[in-house]
Amino acid sequence: MTQLKKDTDMKTQARFYHAGCPVCISAEQTVAGALDPTRYDVEVIHLGEQKDRVAEAETFGVQSVPALVFDKEVFHINHGADLSALK
Amino acid sequence: MTQLKKDTDMKTQARFYHAGCPVCISAEQTVAGALDPTRYDVEVIHLGEQKDRVAEAETFGVQSVPALVFDKEVFHINHGADLSALK
Repeated sequence: MTQLKKDTDMKTQARFYHAGCPVCISAEQTVAGALDPTRYDVEVIHLGEQKDRVAEAETFGVQSVPALVFDKEVFHINHGADLSALK
Repeated sequence: MTQLKKDTDMKTQARFYHAGCPVCISAEQTVAGALDPTRYDVEVIHLGEQKDRVAEAETFGVQSVPALVFDKEVFHINHGADLSALK
């Protein structure tokens, strides 16, 4: 079995968890959209539509949305909805 | 009187208000530091050292630090200290 890993991605993975609420959309457009695309890969996760990923968000320590997770560091941005309301 | 305005700055002004607390430093290094420098000019304001700017932050609607203000939109990032504690 050969192990080839070309074009290693040097970008930091960022996850933006939201629930489609107005507070979430504002944070997505303004904060998540302002991140440097040369340094960050931003994945946007709508927890209302991807309920199977609520547990993943919980593992990172996300308590409410919108929230931005860099590696394992969580930043809650304003307050749209509690994670518990999305289960 | 001539009006010359060369090199018009097309960047959006962002203000990062903080109080030097651990929560603030983490948000400064990770979130404020992740903004795209080609699109944003980020001013970092330590309200513990620049108490004369607490009123300005209040005008924008900042209730706690750390907070990131884009134009007039406020994003409270986690919670380090209430603005009222910095007066």
